[in-house]
Amino acid sequence: MDDTAWHHVVALAGGVGGAKLAEGLQQRLGPRLTVVGNVADDEEIWGLHISPDLDSVMYWLAGVNDEARGWGLADETWHTFETLERIGSAPWFRLGDRDLATHLTRTTLLHEGKPLTEVTARLARGWGVQARLLPVTDDRLRTIVHTEIGPLAFQDYFVRHRWEPAIQAIRFEGEGSAQVTAVVQDALRSAEAIILCPSNPFVSIEPLLRAAPLRELLRASTVPIVAVSPIVGGEAIKGPAAKMFRELGEEPSALAVARRYTDFLDGFLLDERDAHEAAAIEALGLHVAMTDTLMEGAAGRRRVADAVLTLAAALRL
Amino acid sequence: MDDTAWHHVVALAGGVGGAKLAEGLQQRLGPRLTVVGNVADDEEIWGLHISPDLDSVMYWLAGVNDEARGWGLADETWHTFETLERIGSAPWFRLGDRDLATHLTRTTLLHEGKPLTEVTARLARGWGVQARLLPVTDDRLRTIVHTEIGPLAFQDYFVRHRWEPAIQAIRFEGEGSAQVTAVVQDALRSAEAIILCPSNPFVSIEPLLRAAPLRELLRASTVPIVAVSPIVGGEAIKGPAAKMFRELGEEPSALAVARRYTDFLDGFLLDERDAHEAAAIEALGLHVAMTDTLMEGAAGRRRVADAVLTLAAALRL
Repeated sequence: MDDTAWHHVVALAGGVGGAKLAEGLQQRLGPRLTVVGNVADDEEIWGLHISPDLDSVMYWLAGVNDEARGWGLADETWHTFETLERIGSAPWFRLGDRDLATHLTRTTLLHEGKPLTEVTARLARGWGVQARLLPVTDDRLRTIVHTEIGPLAFQDYFVRHRWEPAIQAIRFEGEGSAQVTAVVQDALRSAEAIILCPSNPFVSIEPLLRAAPLRELLRASTVPIVAVSPIVGGEAIKGPAAKMFRELGEEPSALAVARRYTDFLDGFLLDERDAHEAAAIEALGLHVAMTDTLMEGAAGRRRVADAVLTLAAALRL
Repeated sequence: MDDTAWHHVVALAGGVGGAKLAEGLQQRLGPRLTVVGNVADDEEIWGLHISPDLDSVMYWLAGVNDEARGWGLADETWHTFETLERIGSAPWFRLGDRDLATHLTRTTLLHEGKPLTEVTARLARGWGVQARLLPVTDDRLRTIVHTEIGPLAFQDYFVRHRWEPAIQAIRFEGEGSAQVTAVVQDALRSAEAIILCPSNPFVSIEPLLRAAPLRELLRASTVPIVAVSPIVGGEAIKGPAAKMFRELGEEPSALAVARRYTDFLDGFLLDERDAHEAAAIEALGLHVAMTDTLMEGAAGRRRVADAVLTLAAALRL
């Protein structure tokens, strides 16, 4: 495809699915890609400010991620963590030695008063990321998962409780006060297309939309906004998205994902396995394209990126 | 020797010389030894609270120190630090992966509001230290080295500038407000002997004495107080003690060390190489014993510990 047609594309991304598509888009667009990342699963662990969603995207974009483990850095070692265990001080969140360099840098710069946007830019530059990576907000915004065992901070739910407790509701601490940064607002205004990556709708995309006024900016946008479904054959490729749909009373499907975004979405990239859902999604007023959305290897990520860019190009005025 | 004679001995220690003698004393006394450590070279590095003097003693007492390198932990790796270098965020202070477990634990517990005494006890227990390790104060007390290139925080002088700049004066930030903890005061009152380890007189022992009212407590003490000289043959075994004496206008010698403590000291363990100084030190009113004070290996450390305990025993009423 002719990737030179795009001057600036914005992707909203979180988690592994989001990170993979962002990396595929970066293969095509390089620095012409801006990735807006979720901060609502950030956590203070052992005094360190951890941003797992931003870091997943950053490590994939830098090509330093561990594909087999699914999170963190390749060639990671665990000497600090093993020593914390030895001296009886290990937190429930595993911290890799190399990953710690990111957390130490972020924590120190935040303590110095630098906004997360600036800190993230410095980290991304340090790790060699080509695209621009922006947290949606510099303000505090946190996902609180209300479960059968009580309300849990996101990492507590996701890592410590291995997303096992049934969910009753998901709320966002800081909603109403957390503001989309000026640089993200500018990026959205100058974008020629906006892509919702196949990230968890409830805990990666939704908290982005809760930073004010992101949803309103998307509604007001005149450029194509297209989404890639994180649900394939009624299941999530990875993670708790399908389980969350069921626990919140809805059958997981691409259609159910699309319904969440009808107020601003223009196009939807559906997996071939879900072709039977195409008509219902089109009935929502969306343009639908289909491909194999599983992103196997660098070529697979590039292929899905091409498919979503092609859909967006077709929707440009 | 009959080490069962002692119920409680307090050692004042900092740095490698102090750590070695403390370890020798611990071989004899186990939990009947209390080590009071210096905190004036503590530093905030990359958001972490580092206590190099306390940690040197703690790692030696736990038997986990790196003897060849002279500081830090044995079997250390540097993956976090190398990654900080890779992403352009390395501080000037090298942090080992395993050592980081200590700093992360200390920093987090201090941020939670726990006093350094409690934090140090927890770390020492975690590392398996038999003796009791106490920071002299929970208050802020910092060595500021005034040099030809300006005032430097201690680690800045010692690590970053490799103790090269000539010293003009040494001052202590927090002097006048930093108080000896109640638990250290109790330890000194219940001690049957107090030992000044062969630590740097200017930057390990002096800042201990500047925590109020440590010097007055030593003056008022009725139990034997004995020192082991850190200067042998006019030189320090390790570190800048001899250089500091010269820059501050005095010839480095065991006698020069002894003169600093005449208001409270009872006995002095001199190195055999400095036998010619014995008479002058005795003329200060001190009892002098002699041995080879170089502490080669565990047996060497035990031997010097025995010598100092024997001197103290001879001075008991």
